[in-house]
Amino acid sequence: MVTICPSILSADFSRLAEEIQDVERKGADCIHLDLMDGHFVPNLTFGVPVIKALRSCTKLPFDAHLMVEHPETYIDGLAAAGVQYVTVHQEACVHLDRVLQQIREAGMKGGVALNPATPVSSLSCVAGQLDMILIMSVNPGFGGQKFIPYAVDKIRQAKALLEQAGNTAAVIEVDGGVNAKTVQAVKDAGATFLVAGSAVFGAEDRAAAIASLR
Amino acid sequence: MVTICPSILSADFSRLAEEIQDVERKGADCIHLDLMDGHFVPNLTFGVPVIKALRSCTKLPFDAHLMVEHPETYIDGLAAAGVQYVTVHQEACVHLDRVLQQIREAGMKGGVALNPATPVSSLSCVAGQLDMILIMSVNPGFGGQKFIPYAVDKIRQAKALLEQAGNTAAVIEVDGGVNAKTVQAVKDAGATFLVAGSAVFGAEDRAAAIASLR
Amino acid sequence: MVTICPSILSADFSRLAEEIQDVERKGADCIHLDLMDGHFVPNLTFGVPVIKALRSCTKLPFDAHLMVEHPETYIDGLAAAGVQYVTVHQEACVHLDRVLQQIREAGMKGGVALNPATPVSSLSCVAGQLDMILIMSVNPGFGGQKFIPYAVDKIRQAKALLEQAGNTAAVIEVDGGVNAKTVQAVKDAGATFLVAGSAVFGAEDRAAAIASLR
Amino acid sequence: MVTICPSILSADFSRLAEEIQDVERKGADCIHLDLMDGHFVPNLTFGVPVIKALRSCTKLPFDAHLMVEHPETYIDGLAAAGVQYVTVHQEACVHLDRVLQQIREAGMKGGVALNPATPVSSLSCVAGQLDMILIMSVNPGFGGQKFIPYAVDKIRQAKALLEQAGNTAAVIEVDGGVNAKTVQAVKDAGATFLVAGSAVFGAEDRAAAIASLR
Amino acid sequence: MVTICPSILSADFSRLAEEIQDVERKGADCIHLDLMDGHFVPNLTFGVPVIKALRSCTKLPFDAHLMVEHPETYIDGLAAAGVQYVTVHQEACVHLDRVLQQIREAGMKGGVALNPATPVSSLSCVAGQLDMILIMSVNPGFGGQKFIPYAVDKIRQAKALLEQAGNTAAVIEVDGGVNAKTVQAVKDAGATFLVAGSAVFGAEDRAAAIASLR
Amino acid sequence: MVTICPSILSADFSRLAEEIQDVERKGADCIHLDLMDGHFVPNLTFGVPVIKALRSCTKLPFDAHLMVEHPETYIDGLAAAGVQYVTVHQEACVHLDRVLQQIREAGMKGGVALNPATPVSSLSCVAGQLDMILIMSVNPGFGGQKFIPYAVDKIRQAKALLEQAGNTAAVIEVDGGVNAKTVQAVKDAGATFLVAGSAVFGAEDRAAAIASLR
Repeated sequence: MVTICPSILSADFSRLAEEIQDVERKGADCIHLDLMDGHFVPNLTFGVPVIKALRSCTKLPFDAHLMVEHPETYIDGLAAAGVQYVTVHQEACVHLDRVLQQIREAGMKGGVALNPATPVSSLSCVAGQLDMILIMSVNPGFGGQKFIPYAVDKIRQAKALLEQAGNTAAVIEVDGGVNAKTVQAVKDAGATFLVAGSAVFGAEDRAAAIASLR
Repeated sequence: MVTICPSILSADFSRLAEEIQDVERKGADCIHLDLMDGHFVPNLTFGVPVIKALRSCTKLPFDAHLMVEHPETYIDGLAAAGVQYVTVHQEACVHLDRVLQQIREAGMKGGVALNPATPVSSLSCVAGQLDMILIMSVNPGFGGQKFIPYAVDKIRQAKALLEQAGNTAAVIEVDGGVNAKTVQAVKDAGATFLVAGSAVFGAEDRAAAIASLR
Repeated sequence: MVTICPSILSADFSRLAEEIQDVERKGADCIHLDLMDGHFVPNLTFGVPVIKALRSCTKLPFDAHLMVEHPETYIDGLAAAGVQYVTVHQEACVHLDRVLQQIREAGMKGGVALNPATPVSSLSCVAGQLDMILIMSVNPGFGGQKFIPYAVDKIRQAKALLEQAGNTAAVIEVDGGVNAKTVQAVKDAGATFLVAGSAVFGAEDRAAAIASLR
Repeated sequence: MVTICPSILSADFSRLAEEIQDVERKGADCIHLDLMDGHFVPNLTFGVPVIKALRSCTKLPFDAHLMVEHPETYIDGLAAAGVQYVTVHQEACVHLDRVLQQIREAGMKGGVALNPATPVSSLSCVAGQLDMILIMSVNPGFGGQKFIPYAVDKIRQAKALLEQAGNTAAVIEVDGGVNAKTVQAVKDAGATFLVAGSAVFGAEDRAAAIASLR
Repeated sequence: MVTICPSILSADFSRLAEEIQDVERKGADCIHLDLMDGHFVPNLTFGVPVIKALRSCTKLPFDAHLMVEHPETYIDGLAAAGVQYVTVHQEACVHLDRVLQQIREAGMKGGVALNPATPVSSLSCVAGQLDMILIMSVNPGFGGQKFIPYAVDKIRQAKALLEQAGNTAAVIEVDGGVNAKTVQAVKDAGATFLVAGSAVFGAEDRAAAIASLR
Repeated sequence: MVTICPSILSADFSRLAEEIQDVERKGADCIHLDLMDGHFVPNLTFGVPVIKALRSCTKLPFDAHLMVEHPETYIDGLAAAGVQYVTVHQEACVHLDRVLQQIREAGMKGGVALNPATPVSSLSCVAGQLDMILIMSVNPGFGGQKFIPYAVDKIRQAKALLEQAGNTAAVIEVDGGVNAKTVQAVKDAGATFLVAGSAVFGAEDRAAAIASLR
């Protein structure tokens, strides 16, 4: 069972309600929200005020990926805005266990995202505290990048880590360059949460694009 | 002659094209864009990718207010996105003359925004290099704040500073709590660029709201 | 009428209750608390947990001088700890009006401290919003420094600024090297809140030391 | 043989001399000192000036836990203040080997503290250079937190790492939620330096509390 | 009497001894050293190790311009390397009086540099503590920039400030775009310390270039 | 086959052209360039402008070791200056894969340097993307330090990591305290790129020194 999460980073920001409702109708399971602050990554996208406005447009769960420094300051706002999943970056969190506790106490599911160069073993301590591991298959902060092949190995390692921790409920998400060509490899490796940007929003036939990823 | 600039911070972010087109029809002169990065101010709103999507929705000029650290990194993107006015914060710019040069070289008009506590005299050196001074009449970073009365004096001081510098082309913008009650004072003091958020987007009759500010 | 505020930085930290009760008995009017965070100044002294413990030892008001970065994060804790006066540094506050509002909303009196090199004119906008201006007559962060003579002029300028703003309720505090030799000059210039460290805690006869400052 | 280190974070800061002398009489082996700077953790406790005042109150060794950024700036002051053990955080030290050398050259024993989420393997290179590994069993910066069970595994891993490095002299310290319920597990896993805050200072019978931990 | 200070930023870095000895012979009075750290300005030039190597090549005084953050950390090294003048940036110094004291205690003359946008009035408190004011007539960090005409007014203001403070010993230095065309204006305004980069090192006839500036 | 890279940090900075030409004649294979920014390490050495001047002095390849924060901002300048090898620090790069891509896209070979305390396993993900691993055998930022013996194990681990990744083209460089006494151990462990500072530039007979390292 895979969860297809179109990222609105590839949608038309001038009419997000329509865009989200369109992919909901075409079979999307979840909406992926890429928060970037111009500090953790060199790009500024959007934050809580935008997300708040989107909540009433769709019944789909929201999956917020925080490419920001000091993510702990956004957790309460995300919960109030109706977000279901929050992933923070391992590289942005000196106090990673604490922010994961904070996400869960706010009633959301918490995950950790890993930059391409960051080893999966950096999560060995918190493996049992996670709802999700997000393997970045491109470097965050930019669109239109090519899938990094070695990310497939990291998905396998993440799966092994979760199993070893007895954490069978947690899922593995993959983000970056996921499309018709790369999707089978990431699914085979164990990813079930698939983020797709232009592969969905940029497709002629979005329903077909979602179906083909599934 | 005043310029009425509704701020999309008070618009519905899920359908910005419609919102902007609506205020354009109702008499707005310019669209005010509040970029916040969660560092200069404790709130993350939106950045260049959102602005890029809005450009084709309207003929109105775009007035970008950069409540961000290291604003120099956004100038090229704003120019490419079709922005006309860029204001950076005095408090965020160690190299203020340089970023003003950069804005003008990118073909845009450049201004400096002053937090409520920042004296107008901090602009004494660059008074001749400015297209705009933005007097904040609330503390930036939050919505729904009350107009700070002492901002009116600062508008007067800004007008005097520009006159003393022989810079008669530059305009004075005011942002924060501008509404039917406060607008006359700021116009009398010399402001001609008026930012309005909820006073326009939150009004029952937006055309009337804009007309009353004018 | 002067207010004598012994600074516990010169007290014996191993028995603060006794030390504070002693200067209370000897005539002190207020207890000065020097918070330093090792970032705004290169020294780490103490914070809210220490202040909380001291509150029940004395009836004297507490005057907290925040030599810290991001002072806004300490305001609620200081209010809960029973502090009456809070001064933040102009040099540490990008959003100075906002933090002053925050201090007052928390039920305390708010002031701004100026480093020796910082002009009094930097407070021209907020002069009407202040309960106190703290003129540093040494560079903050170290003990045992010599009084900087040009601080006397700054006291005069601060007094003039407050008068010009019609803010007759606000007081001028002076901190650094205040002792029997320097006290007359600072009082003549208009300071009424006098911080004294070793001049009180280091004196053979603390009652006499306080009396002589008064 | 265990070493019981009451943390003065749970003592009465208004009379630290008495508090420390009391736990010394009741059987404490060492005094634990929690330095926090409001930057590495969101709390400001105390620094070198407080420690200096405490040195003459007791013969017990001092164990300073530096929850601060740029800990290298405090080492000389801690040595001069009479501290015996210094632990710095792995997450705060880009140049960890250098600061460990600096601690030893200053005549103190040096350790590294690990946040709950930080793997023990991050110390694989410096395992032979350590006098102590401090396993945090709560997230640092706050009192009154619950013991994190997965810290027990990390104690075991730390013990294995030290053995593998042939470093049999180094000890394992544990800090956070150590009390009558959790102490047996951490001792069984290999910790011999036990920090206790409220479990000692908050106990009716401190001697009994210390004895029960032992 | 003017002092001509060629800046080695325009010299050939592969043979600095020769270059410096050449301009010494051709009439230079002082060697200007532009330290940049890639943080205060977006360029990294050189630091103390390079300066140390140059000291034995020439008898001319060294004038170090610190375009760096936390300049206080370089003062001792500069003194040991044989530097005579040190200017720090007002924009880089939260504790400006302290760093000026530090420079003088290290036996050097101390000045403050002002970015083009920074008002001269920012130095009103320390005007009596200065040996030098450095008016930047370009934005620091880059070579080959055009002289900013409004810097001439700032030289006049700096002269007035020093006179008002009774500090007749202090000199005014100007840096950026000083050449045959601009030199008369800056001298007329009161600058006596003239930094020249390409105008000297890039000249066919360096002796003539220096003479013409003089 | 070893590559001997004298580091100009130990050369005479006043006549770098001569120094470099001298070691080129005496058998050096490559010139090592230690960029330090006073932030990543507490020392400021030199940057791109110096390197640019050196390029025409020698045919030897340039090996730039970036002991700087945000190394991504220097890559284009280094390429334009004619550098062949660039190593960035793992501890300075949140986006390590991205900066490695950037180095290669600029036509240079890219490596990662590890501080003494940083485990080799931190490179497990990017092992296949590297041209070089630089094992620091002293703490960076200072000269004249003693070789850290445990670095030899790390060379072995780096070699194993590269082999496991099938990356047989990548080389292992070692920097710090490499001299006649320590060189055999590092060569036996698998290092082939040897940085030497005072061991070459400080030698009576530089040709002999290079030969003996080889």
